[in-house]
Amino acid sequence: MRKIAESTVRRLSLYLRFLEEFEEEGTATVSSEALARRGGTTSAQVRKDLSFFGSFGKRGLGYSVRELADALRDILGLERSYNVAVVGAGKIGSALVEYEGFSGRGFHVRWVFDRDPEKIGSAWNGVRVQDVERLEAELRAGDVQIAIVATTADAAQAIADRLVAIGVKAILNFAPVQLSVAHDVAVKNVNMAMELETLSYALRNR
Amino acid sequence: MRKIAESTVRRLSLYLRFLEEFEEEGTATVSSEALARRGGTTSAQVRKDLSFFGSFGKRGLGYSVRELADALRDILGLERSYNVAVVGAGKIGSALVEYEGFSGRGFHVRWVFDRDPEKIGSAWNGVRVQDVERLEAELRAGDVQIAIVATTADAAQAIADRLVAIGVKAILNFAPVQLSVAHDVAVKNVNMAMELETLSYALRNR
Repeated sequence: MRKIAESTVRRLSLYLRFLEEFEEEGTATVSSEALARRGGTTSAQVRKDLSFFGSFGKRGLGYSVRELADALRDILGLERSYNVAVVGAGKIGSALVEYEGFSGRGFHVRWVFDRDPEKIGSAWNGVRVQDVERLEAELRAGDVQIAIVATTADAAQAIADRLVAIGVKAILNFAPVQLSVAHDVAVKNVNMAMELETLSYALRNR
Repeated sequence: MRKIAESTVRRLSLYLRFLEEFEEEGTATVSSEALARRGGTTSAQVRKDLSFFGSFGKRGLGYSVRELADALRDILGLERSYNVAVVGAGKIGSALVEYEGFSGRGFHVRWVFDRDPEKIGSAWNGVRVQDVERLEAELRAGDVQIAIVATTADAAQAIADRLVAIGVKAILNFAPVQLSVAHDVAVKNVNMAMELETLSYALRNR
């Protein structure tokens, strides 16, 4: 399959959310215009994004809400569930462990690791914080697919190396540092300051 | 100016970070290839992104690290500072108030609001949590530019309406709901589940 831009994947995630809203509202079919309107984009963009993945909808009839939602879940890999490990039990780590939106999407946080003896042993949302020394032992025994790095900047690369060494292929990185990993490992960086910069850009260029 | 895609703005933020790294390493000039390599993109993409904003660098000589960094700071609106209000003093709100990466970029969290009497009055990182009833009074008296909505999903739209009513033009939304705001208000949504979906997509389409 062609390489798809991350911005396209993000829009697919958004379309799926809108389709689920349409489904809740009892709407059976939807046009690319209606989908675009809800997402603040254009119908041409919607059709282009979907065209990468096949042929959806019928000309003049629009998309079946349920069929397109199912197709997007399949494309996004959401027809299965994922076991997630969080490394770093600071504020962001704890916010993530308690984040309500994960389990409904099949993302289950099974492990939390930290190096702070005061945090180790406490339970968050039913998950016990474990000593990061046990990372390999625990994750090798389990079946982890996604790791979230929420450590300090200076600790993040070493943690990423350890995760990759035991076969983790997908990392969500909250540490304010660029991780260097093998080519076959997907890393997605979340940088709060960068999120604000899209807003300062918008304010500056009004 | 032409409307620039958000994905372009995000890459500019990334380039700025790499340029600052080059600056720290003592590098005076950098090629689009070197910049692209650090960012996992192509030199053509770097040149295209920058071309929207003018002419940078000299053919064969590359870019002056300092000049390009200054230009990007100017484009991104980072030559000034911003007063930021956080609404919602839950886990994510508290993580944001203590986030280290904001103040270095000129984003200063001056206010935190919540409706929970147990939280009101406590101080976080030197900022006192105030009753959300005081939102208008406090923000009208102050000089707020950016608001972060970190409330529950059901409270978010009402808070956004109140923020917009007092003139806030930029909102970073962490609540898992699509906000509806006036056309001249910039809203940037951060959805943790969507971040993970770019990884499930990557795992599914390896």
